[in-house]
Amino acid sequence: MQKLKAHKTFGGTTSFWSHSSRETKTPMKFSSFVPDGPVNGCLIWLSGLTCTEENFITKAGAQRYLAENRLMVVAPDTSPRGLDLPGEHDSYDFGSGAGFYLDARSPAYAPHYRMESYIVRELVPLIHDQFRVAKLGVFGHSMGGHGALTLGLKYPALFSSVSAFSPIVNPCEAPWGVKAFEGYLGNDRGLWREHDSCELLKNGHRHPTRLLIHQGTQDEFLEKQLLTKNFEAAARSVDQDHLVVYADGYDHSYYFIATFIEQHVRHHAEILRA
Amino acid sequence: MQKLKAHKTFGGTTSFWSHSSRETKTPMKFSSFVPDGPVNGCLIWLSGLTCTEENFITKAGAQRYLAENRLMVVAPDTSPRGLDLPGEHDSYDFGSGAGFYLDARSPAYAPHYRMESYIVRELVPLIHDQFRVAKLGVFGHSMGGHGALTLGLKYPALFSSVSAFSPIVNPCEAPWGVKAFEGYLGNDRGLWREHDSCELLKNGHRHPTRLLIHQGTQDEFLEKQLLTKNFEAAARSVDQDHLVVYADGYDHSYYFIATFIEQHVRHHAEILRA
Repeated sequence: MQKLKAHKTFGGTTSFWSHSSRETKTPMKFSSFVPDGPVNGCLIWLSGLTCTEENFITKAGAQRYLAENRLMVVAPDTSPRGLDLPGEHDSYDFGSGAGFYLDARSPAYAPHYRMESYIVRELVPLIHDQFRVAKLGVFGHSMGGHGALTLGLKYPALFSSVSAFSPIVNPCEAPWGVKAFEGYLGNDRGLWREHDSCELLKNGHRHPTRLLIHQGTQDEFLEKQLLTKNFEAAARSVDQDHLVVYADGYDHSYYFIATFIEQHVRHHAEILRA
Repeated sequence: MQKLKAHKTFGGTTSFWSHSSRETKTPMKFSSFVPDGPVNGCLIWLSGLTCTEENFITKAGAQRYLAENRLMVVAPDTSPRGLDLPGEHDSYDFGSGAGFYLDARSPAYAPHYRMESYIVRELVPLIHDQFRVAKLGVFGHSMGGHGALTLGLKYPALFSSVSAFSPIVNPCEAPWGVKAFEGYLGNDRGLWREHDSCELLKNGHRHPTRLLIHQGTQDEFLEKQLLTKNFEAAARSVDQDHLVVYADGYDHSYYFIATFIEQHVRHHAEILRA
């Protein structure tokens, strides 16, 4: 694991790292913030389409609240990089920058696009080993909100707390999700359902804590891609504790995330402290 | 004046604007944040080398503190754009992205590189007219810290409050400043002194309020380019009220700015409220 850069921030350190990934068979990058003093847990932030390890750590303004709540954060890149798979760089919503936090089955992508295993089997142990932090939460934005909800529901023993901004809650029914699942998983919709938070809830997956979601009402993707109401209906129908906050007038941007990031950090801190 | 984008942020609005500049004879862009409710003043943020109107508004995390203190901010681009003057795009520290907040005298640059007049004679009246805000402060980073100190000292009636992060305080003695002044102003060092905060202080310019500076001790540019001690000596020798805070371990980045931006916003708010 190689430290690329480090910047003192709110008394702690914002860093950028590269390591050789066993799961993706490529170098993978992530950013981190570690506050000064004892740390009560680590949040993994999963970013949205087109993002890298940089967006969250430079734009969300989370460091102040992480320091106040004695939490560190790790924000990985959103896909393998440096490859040239068929169609990998042709569109913003598939391939590079669009790993969708799943393990691909299609022959071209299966050897490298293993973002679910990368997060769960490689990054989580690396955080335990390198940063000596036991308790984890997961949160994210848009495609990364999908990642946070699905990985949180599938691995509740790993992720003690879960939240999301503007998540793609029902990718089986959203154009972004359909395109990604067709490309990475093929046409077997049974496989798709393992990567859809609404379907996971319907199929018995639960998280023992309240799932917190913030969603802007002026988000241009709300109606067609995010389908937030489907999550509310699914969670209500199976009694999964959840709180969806519709933030009046906010859009899909990091300005929206920056406005409410303190509430998410506190949500995780309260659960991880318990 | 054309609004390019707007994003609700901390209850207010972050916006991006373009207008046709009389001074630079080019389109000029700036960003703004206007909090919800009554506004007590406007801060003009001047950015550093290579920056555009985007860096501060996306990375500094200032919106929360501006909203809390009922202040708006305007952050202009750092030079004219869309031209192709001789040498304009050859280096990061001269020409595009490096306007140095002065009016050029060299024949190639004089018609367009008029950033001092652009700020003082065009942007300030535009803020008064469009946003109906009377009281102004000025602050900035690095080259923009130089801009804030020099414009603050030259126009104390326009800018009621002044502060800077990692400013180039004595450009006549710093490689960045010498290169810029030679290129924009020629070899007459008498002209250079009108754009150097240390020289302005020695030549009788004063600001009626305390000049606040934050400077990271691990800033890679401190010794060769920023020369902070020269400002302390000059201000002390002429009894200009000032406070230079050396922040232990911090570097030249926006992580440093984000850490201390609240203190700067409060500094301006206290003076503008008086």
